[in-house]
Amino acid sequence: MKQLFIENVPNEVGHEVELYGWVDSLRDHKNIVFLDLRDTTGKVQIVGTEDFRNLSPEDVVCVKGMVKERPKNLVNPKIKTGTVEVEAKKFRILSKAQQLPFDISKAELGVSLPVLLDYRSLTLRHPKIAAIFRLQETVIDAFRESLKKKSFVEFQSPVIIPETAEGGADVFEVKYFGHKAYLSQSPQFYKQIMVGVFDRVFTVNKTLRAEPSVTTRHLAEVTTLDAEFGFIDSWTELIEMVEYVTKYVFSEIEKRNPDVLGLYHATLPKIVSPIPRLKLRDAQEIIFKRTGRDNRTDPDLQPEDEREICKWAREEKQSDLIFITHYPVKKRPFYTFEDPEDLGYTLSFDLLGRGMEWLTGGQRIHVLDELVRRAKERHMNIEKSELYLQAFRYGMPPEGGFSFGSERIVMSILGLGNIREASLFPRDMERVDIKL
Amino acid sequence: MKQLFIENVPNEVGHEVELYGWVDSLRDHKNIVFLDLRDTTGKVQIVGTEDFRNLSPEDVVCVKGMVKERPKNLVNPKIKTGTVEVEAKKFRILSKAQQLPFDISKAELGVSLPVLLDYRSLTLRHPKIAAIFRLQETVIDAFRESLKKKSFVEFQSPVIIPETAEGGADVFEVKYFGHKAYLSQSPQFYKQIMVGVFDRVFTVNKTLRAEPSVTTRHLAEVTTLDAEFGFIDSWTELIEMVEYVTKYVFSEIEKRNPDVLGLYHATLPKIVSPIPRLKLRDAQEIIFKRTGRDNRTDPDLQPEDEREICKWAREEKQSDLIFITHYPVKKRPFYTFEDPEDLGYTLSFDLLGRGMEWLTGGQRIHVLDELVRRAKERHMNIEKSELYLQAFRYGMPPEGGFSFGSERIVMSILGLGNIREASLFPRDMERVDIKL
Repeated sequence: MKQLFIENVPNEVGHEVELYGWVDSLRDHKNIVFLDLRDTTGKVQIVGTEDFRNLSPEDVVCVKGMVKERPKNLVNPKIKTGTVEVEAKKFRILSKAQQLPFDISKAELGVSLPVLLDYRSLTLRHPKIAAIFRLQETVIDAFRESLKKKSFVEFQSPVIIPETAEGGADVFEVKYFGHKAYLSQSPQFYKQIMVGVFDRVFTVNKTLRAEPSVTTRHLAEVTTLDAEFGFIDSWTELIEMVEYVTKYVFSEIEKRNPDVLGLYHATLPKIVSPIPRLKLRDAQEIIFKRTGRDNRTDPDLQPEDEREICKWAREEKQSDLIFITHYPVKKRPFYTFEDPEDLGYTLSFDLLGRGMEWLTGGQRIHVLDELVRRAKERHMNIEKSELYLQAFRYGMPPEGGFSFGSERIVMSILGLGNIREASLFPRDMERVDIKL
Repeated sequence: MKQLFIENVPNEVGHEVELYGWVDSLRDHKNIVFLDLRDTTGKVQIVGTEDFRNLSPEDVVCVKGMVKERPKNLVNPKIKTGTVEVEAKKFRILSKAQQLPFDISKAELGVSLPVLLDYRSLTLRHPKIAAIFRLQETVIDAFRESLKKKSFVEFQSPVIIPETAEGGADVFEVKYFGHKAYLSQSPQFYKQIMVGVFDRVFTVNKTLRAEPSVTTRHLAEVTTLDAEFGFIDSWTELIEMVEYVTKYVFSEIEKRNPDVLGLYHATLPKIVSPIPRLKLRDAQEIIFKRTGRDNRTDPDLQPEDEREICKWAREEKQSDLIFITHYPVKKRPFYTFEDPEDLGYTLSFDLLGRGMEWLTGGQRIHVLDELVRRAKERHMNIEKSELYLQAFRYGMPPEGGFSFGSERIVMSILGLGNIREASLFPRDMERVDIKL
């Protein structure tokens, strides 16, 4: 078994090592062949022999050799192992690669999005592409860690759901043993049920949505980070929990992934305490004043409005993040809590980051009769969601929660142009691994 | 917001506290009413007043009162807070519950499986039922933690998949924008692809299987714990990694969930180092000798055989766990590595625990031509799995992995009679939350 990762080679100067990895590139200098060997932790230069001429990029090899310090003038500051090289003594090919469709050893992998995805198993190996998913791992991990520290319990929410009250045109249908079932668009109902069990819960899920349009910010399958908790005195406690989680995630990224940020020349969004909060109406007023664009009666922000209000937050509040609150009752799901001091508007919020929605959340109605009344107003068959209603029938505390989109956060932090770049295997109406 | 969990009340003797929770039970003693208040961490006795007579089980309340030490003769050793009680000064009802269908305050919730599931949002609140999912959380968490310590990277595997070579009768079909797509039965192909990216990977997934039979050990949706890693010298390294992860999981359960084990009078399975290993043929021979049951030509173990060989392991090897290895080529998936020293048999294994399969794993074929040849032998349209083939086309190291079923482990450790009890919201051919 592989014992030594490439990033640790500089600790082995003067020792013989056994390295496993992929041939990243080969440079032929007359009597000597240089090989850059790559594994998940980095690359290292191997000084080879004649035999290396039989190798090709992406061949999998095992190289035995001596680690030597490079002369000062030959140090390569661009790679972590740039102070050393390995003088090969022996090598063997574990697996041969076919001719590559393009050179993936370049620092900038200059391929179009369709090529990036058509050759996904290959392009993911490029360190800059792989780095995106190290960041995603940190975001998800830090989300979990932050909430565990606050006594939240992680639970597993189902993918397959029965016909529900919320169902709409954009829900995927599944053939289920002669019945119809559906794919979960959100663990919303289940996380609310689980508040009755564990007080505070979170769940990491694939959520599936039949988005009928092709945009740069939507996917048919995303990984969402959902939390829900009970016994709140005010909806502002929800916002405060989001602030806490967001800061925690940022600080973990800073600790674990400075190299990923470096590859993308990215900086973490500026965050201030508290994160600025604006009612939707006040945001629309500001946008109107700044741009003359009058969307003051819209029930939501358009993408260009999201960008504009983020610009405002940056200029006026020195913040890359902003909460927009008090969306109208009609625009939010039926279970959203109406603000008793601002009728017609809900105790709900979105968190926008750098011009894009990162999160949505809010307080929920916890009283059965009120919940049923709101559902009926929308002509929903709420009776179909029996387990959901049951949770309220038998006593539910005041509660609320929120849901982050992990791909959105990663896209936004690294400044990626398309959310497909932030998904390992993006699904949309035109692609499931391969073009449909 | 709730500040104090009930388990911490004994630390507050002499102080006034504010407690939030559910009315677990009420005992009316003439001039005085006792209330057991429950939250996710436990129960505590509240000494109430006349007004408490208006309360009913599962009402959600906030109680303010003084924490007092109980006289020695009134200490209740059965609950963690049994040394104290709270003398109520004020209380308010946050949410009223309707009349319960059955009493859930009893230590043993004596209801049938259908009732347990029909009233899932209520029955999950019973501390003994909820405890099952604290154990599941630990199993999943410890799986992640153990592998991170060995440089594995967590990735997100998709739920929606294209038509694949592996597809069979038990795959769920999804209506996908006018096309057919399917639900993932395993992250197998994706985790192998990811070995090319991160060397060592793991993923926690919902896997969906249209199990056409109703058994006590199968569900249509389960949470599987998958790992895969490259650069192995021998398939025994896979088995050693499983041993490491299993021991890690057990030790975390011991640390975090002694109370859960206690509720079920359960002990962790006995594990010895190394865990006994038997070739399938040798296991069948032992079973034949012990029982006279001649299944020596079967390609797999029947449930009763699994129980018998576990009994043998317990009696002869003092182990509750056993690896069965070398399943025949024809019984394992096409990508399974054939043992060059034992042709016709594979370098694959199952881990059985207390009479039931917990895990399956093995070394995979990493050479493209060989992989394609094996697929063709089975008349599979392997070309459809383009991204999978791509990973091998461009160099894949010798690799393998394994997949735990989290519900199976939990069921087995706690001695549950039916896997449905080990799933929060179990899905089978007859139920998706409610009976179909």
